Amino acid sequence: MTPNSSRFRVGVLGAGTVGAAFHALLEARADAIGAEMGLRPEISGVLTRSRGDFEDILERSDLIVELIGGTDPALEYALRTLRAKRHFVTANKQLLSRHGEELFAAAGEAGAQLRFEAAVAGVVPAIRVIAETLAGAHIERVHGIVNGTTNFILTAMERTGASYEEALREAQELGYAEADPTEDVTGRDAAAKMAILARLAFGAPVGLDDVPFEGIESVTAEDIAYARELGLSLKLIGSAERVDGGLSVQVYPAFLYSGHPLAAVNGSFNAVTIESPDITEITLSGPGAGGSQTASAVLGDVISAMIPPPFNSPPAKPMPLVTDRESAFYLHVEVADRPGVLAQVAEILGMQGVSLESLVQKGIGEDARLAMVMHPVLESRFRAAVGLIGRLDFVRSAPRVIRVISETFE
Amino acid sequence: MTPNSSRFRVGVLGAGTVGAAFHALLEARADAIGAEMGLRPEISGVLTRSRGDFEDILERSDLIVELIGGTDPALEYALRTLRAKRHFVTANKQLLSRHGEELFAAAGEAGAQLRFEAAVAGVVPAIRVIAETLAGAHIERVHGIVNGTTNFILTAMERTGASYEEALREAQELGYAEADPTEDVTGRDAAAKMAILARLAFGAPVGLDDVPFEGIESVTAEDIAYARELGLSLKLIGSAERVDGGLSVQVYPAFLYSGHPLAAVNGSFNAVTIESPDITEITLSGPGAGGSQTASAVLGDVISAMIPPPFNSPPAKPMPLVTDRESAFYLHVEVADRPGVLAQVAEILGMQGVSLESLVQKGIGEDARLAMVMHPVLESRFRAAVGLIGRLDFVRSAPRVIRVISETFE
Repeated sequence: MTPNSSRFRVGVLGAGTVGAAFHALLEARADAIGAEMGLRPEISGVLTRSRGDFEDILERSDLIVELIGGTDPALEYALRTLRAKRHFVTANKQLLSRHGEELFAAAGEAGAQLRFEAAVAGVVPAIRVIAETLAGAHIERVHGIVNGTTNFILTAMERTGASYEEALREAQELGYAEADPTEDVTGRDAAAKMAILARLAFGAPVGLDDVPFEGIESVTAEDIAYARELGLSLKLIGSAERVDGGLSVQVYPAFLYSGHPLAAVNGSFNAVTIESPDITEITLSGPGAGGSQTASAVLGDVISAMIPPPFNSPPAKPMPLVTDRESAFYLHVEVADRPGVLAQVAEILGMQGVSLESLVQKGIGEDARLAMVMHPVLESRFRAAVGLIGRLDFVRSAPRVIRVISETFE
Repeated sequence: MTPNSSRFRVGVLGAGTVGAAFHALLEARADAIGAEMGLRPEISGVLTRSRGDFEDILERSDLIVELIGGTDPALEYALRTLRAKRHFVTANKQLLSRHGEELFAAAGEAGAQLRFEAAVAGVVPAIRVIAETLAGAHIERVHGIVNGTTNFILTAMERTGASYEEALREAQELGYAEADPTEDVTGRDAAAKMAILARLAFGAPVGLDDVPFEGIESVTAEDIAYARELGLSLKLIGSAERVDGGLSVQVYPAFLYSGHPLAAVNGSFNAVTIESPDITEITLSGPGAGGSQTASAVLGDVISAMIPPPFNSPPAKPMPLVTDRESAFYLHVEVADRPGVLAQVAEILGMQGVSLESLVQKGIGEDARLAMVMHPVLESRFRAAVGLIGRLDFVRSAPRVIRVISETFE
């Protein structure tokens, strides 16, 4: 038995998939970590629904790992841990995106550490890179693919021509989507993650309710097929950036040109790009959350907490939230195939200051389909044009709109 | 004037491009860092060839930033800094890859920090992710593109069909290559960086002299054009991995299939992929070293050193270095265009256990060119086959060999 002074006692809340993976990983790596750090991490107790007492585990721990999920009782446990001047490591995006300010304040007052790498993008170390590598940098934008389930579904649709429903079913069968996929496919999971990233990158209070999100449920195989002809690939993008002294944080499906670094992120992978004038950009990518990935991210946080840097985020300063943004757009309309139709559509676009970058037109019986990509334009103006186009008598179904990300980097 | 207790005094050695960029960045960000960290970084002195005294600057500094380059007098300054229990931050890959063990030992004894993020891959935080995020993980492999100059040249050749000489000239005109590009184009710069990454990832003593390297000087526009037909793109790859209880660390040009994440890394960008069974992999990418990128990486290290974690690497344990590895290969041969030629080439390959994956054959007058991709095979066996093929009487010029990286990830 090693003496107390060289042990680092880790209490674990929750015993699901991630809990079990973390337990196994910690046991496998404890000796190597002890040899390297001079402190050997050990599990001091595990709290499950049916077993263990929180106060008792807290008493015997230097750090609490929370893997329960949700906010009740996770918030209560988090605050009690930090107030007892113990470190708190969590994989819980709900907790951070809803109660971040409370938790940062509690950690700051107690001088304890609050770490949450595993809450955001699986194994992708976005939190550490923003908080440490770029601690001295002015960050302009953080954007990326932060939900593995939706990326798996979109990749499958693109590769096989499958419908959304078929691809979702495949994802469920392979364990990439839950039986109830709502949280992922609506974009809500990604919105929580973007709130956390934005809070950290910009030091402004951004919570889950501040982030508008759109999901992928209404994406069709046809959208994807047309877009392919235009050299575009569809991703669910989370974006947080400074705009005119304010902040824009959003989640939406968007087409990317093939030269875009995020266009190559396929399957259940996540990727986050952080842009700052000092460094241009850093892109981080890796598998989205799986049990062993999340466990590894949690362990990285535990080891960092064994060494005491004051990682805690300073109090947030409010910044205005901007929602009307300039963007390029894809527009798909089914119209009667007769002369003058394209001219009328083009006229409406022109009147709203929207200019066309590329167009694919295909006849289908008596109708035609128009798939268009627009140059960047203020979203409100583009939506106004689409509203007018939707009311034209020759338009056969509701126009479909998807953002296009047109920058390429190198 | 802020009181001494809230200042963090940074002495700078060297006043070239990076030194000036670091100075400017520090001044611009000092107030924000002070507000966040409770310690305001300030330049306490600058040593140039003609100005300043090292001992005097050291005396007045909490940390020394070394941006001189080379090992003399950088090594002497590094050791004197660490022995004086001051932190040492450097962008100097020569220093680390030649004298790493000495420096790690000195830092460990003094309890001072040695940080060197900027020495490896520009702004890409490979060092921090290996040493911190993955501190608890067992790393199997680190590989990537760690030289921006050669990646710029190869990208230009691929996009424009330019020759190596033309692309190098363009890189020089645009400031991506030095007037004397030897260090970059021979692969030696990448070898130094891979030695540093391998030392850190595997805890084994790996120095610059342990890393065999090949460069890109003999790559032809023709190789690149043929490979394109096979769906391949050429990169200068640095690779460090565990093999049979030993370690293989190498730098070589290699073809990548378009699905490979590194295939999409273009222009002067760098990227590093770290693989571990716990996490699958993490890929980090961003611009290779430029003045402001390097300055930003140095500032990230300075801020981390303001908070005192014992980041120092434990003593290295030797591991055998493996050089004969299994790999897929591209082979290009010019032969007389007559019956039986392909059969003889195929027979030699078969006798050495080399099997063909794909083949492009083109006639040019009385000769023909064969471009082939082989399935993975032990390098020594493949080289033996190539030796025999080169001696066949119908072979018109020396066969050309390039490795092919055939894994795809998602």
